Amino acid sequence: MTNDDEMAFETALVARAAAVETLLRRLLDDRALTGEIARPGRLMAAMRHGVLNGGKRLRPFLVMESAALFSADGEAALRVAAALECVHCYSLIHDDLPAMDDDDLRRGQPTVHRAFDEATAILAGDALLTLAFDILADETTALPAERRAAVVLALARAAGTGGMVGGQTLDLEAERIAPDEAGIIRLQAMKTGALIRFACEAGAVVAGVPAGDRERLAEFGSAIGLAFQLADDLLDLTADAAQMGKATGKDAAAGKATLVALHGEAWARAQLHGLVHQAHALLEPYGEQAGLLKAAATFVATRNN
Amino acid sequence: MTNDDEMAFETALVARAAAVETLLRRLLDDRALTGEIARPGRLMAAMRHGVLNGGKRLRPFLVMESAALFSADGEAALRVAAALECVHCYSLIHDDLPAMDDDDLRRGQPTVHRAFDEATAILAGDALLTLAFDILADETTALPAERRAAVVLALARAAGTGGMVGGQTLDLEAERIAPDEAGIIRLQAMKTGALIRFACEAGAVVAGVPAGDRERLAEFGSAIGLAFQLADDLLDLTADAAQMGKATGKDAAAGKATLVALHGEAWARAQLHGLVHQAHALLEPYGEQAGLLKAAATFVATRNN
Repeated sequence: MTNDDEMAFETALVARAAAVETLLRRLLDDRALTGEIARPGRLMAAMRHGVLNGGKRLRPFLVMESAALFSADGEAALRVAAALECVHCYSLIHDDLPAMDDDDLRRGQPTVHRAFDEATAILAGDALLTLAFDILADETTALPAERRAAVVLALARAAGTGGMVGGQTLDLEAERIAPDEAGIIRLQAMKTGALIRFACEAGAVVAGVPAGDRERLAEFGSAIGLAFQLADDLLDLTADAAQMGKATGKDAAAGKATLVALHGEAWARAQLHGLVHQAHALLEPYGEQAGLLKAAATFVATRNN
Repeated sequence: MTNDDEMAFETALVARAAAVETLLRRLLDDRALTGEIARPGRLMAAMRHGVLNGGKRLRPFLVMESAALFSADGEAALRVAAALECVHCYSLIHDDLPAMDDDDLRRGQPTVHRAFDEATAILAGDALLTLAFDILADETTALPAERRAAVVLALARAAGTGGMVGGQTLDLEAERIAPDEAGIIRLQAMKTGALIRFACEAGAVVAGVPAGDRERLAEFGSAIGLAFQLADDLLDLTADAAQMGKATGKDAAAGKATLVALHGEAWARAQLHGLVHQAHALLEPYGEQAGLLKAAATFVATRNN
């Protein structure tokens, strides 16, 4: 990636993040919607604390860029992006709970259960997950009902038992019995991979493109999902807490089974190189239009926080 | 209600519960669906523990009967009923957690976090909530996409910030600062009322009837939701734990603000009588077809467990 590509990507990432942040702020407003009785202030504040925290908004970026690749409706893609970010943030709130990873810090700020309390954190996560499906199904997401239903289904499947939540369960089990290589790959494909895959696939669903394109974008998402996790494991090994805004070195300290622990740093870097190559190759049919998505793949593999 | 009506209702309730139980068992199977990577056995077991526990399945009954009132597709209504039950059961699993009500027993069995562990209970709840939207959006729910999207939206709004989860937040706050009468009514309309209202409304959405009929069924749902909560508060005062399968007398012991505590038992019974009358009146336009729904309203107000 040239410096120009990198700069174009970083500019676009910041712009997309600002757009999704504005929408999320509106969606998490205290005012009740039609069909809602009231929005309790403390719950809304906890939801905002968990969502409006300066994240990079990588997943929303992937939704919006994959939608743009097919010239899909940008406003609809933005709402899908916001819904996905609600799911991602709910998962972080629940993962941070004392019964789970018991983390005090997230992006340099107190986690939701530290800033509020445990019950409120559980409920804020529940409410964000529910809100995600509200956003997608609402007619304000100006897509044919078929696509709204399709994107609800795809997100539910990526986030549920056979995806993210299932992956979190496997991760908890991995603390007791170390999984083998196939087990680690499955765990990661579910825990972090499924939502990233969905992010890339969602743009194709929003655009209503043929199944072949949707599958290609999903495969692109799987490749960068794998890269994302490898880079994360490398960062846990090499970065410090200030750089990451959260505790690091936890994997090694916990003797956690990761592919990096299994095969070493050099192998991991070679793998990352291969995954970026594979991701870029998948986007070849789309030519220059796919420039920012390709840059995103490179970014995911080489990020340093 | 005559004895005949009562028997017909109880027979129908048991039959509907058996149908929904069969479907839930299939939906909570260990085998992964298309788009799922794997279903972790421990997570699925925890979900089954929280769902397949011999509940009365009142909410599914209301969905199926309100759908039948408009001659809607029975299979689709059954799936909507199962999705709603997943949401209801997730809410019980999370409500029972140590950080919330800290309950050890539910329907005479150990709660999910007692039978498994706290992390698994949190995740099983998350997964059930997610599964509900999966069920509704899936084309297997053989409805036009418009109706699938509409039922996703209605459930999300009933279960979320401005409905059930918001109500649970208000309930936690009520332990610190006792709400006034309007506050109690709002809390209950959100915490327990919204899902019961949705149950009755959902049948109309499944059937795709005009807005007037949908609104009438929703109002019927609101009336019996209020009755349900009043009856619950009365039972907490008068029933014992063996009868209820869970701890009782908790409200009074906690000095909890309920309408029964505020106005007394006689007032509550008179209110219940009025609510049943109102619920029955709302169903007048549907004549004899509405017999079982009317019986359900009576049951909700007079149940003894």
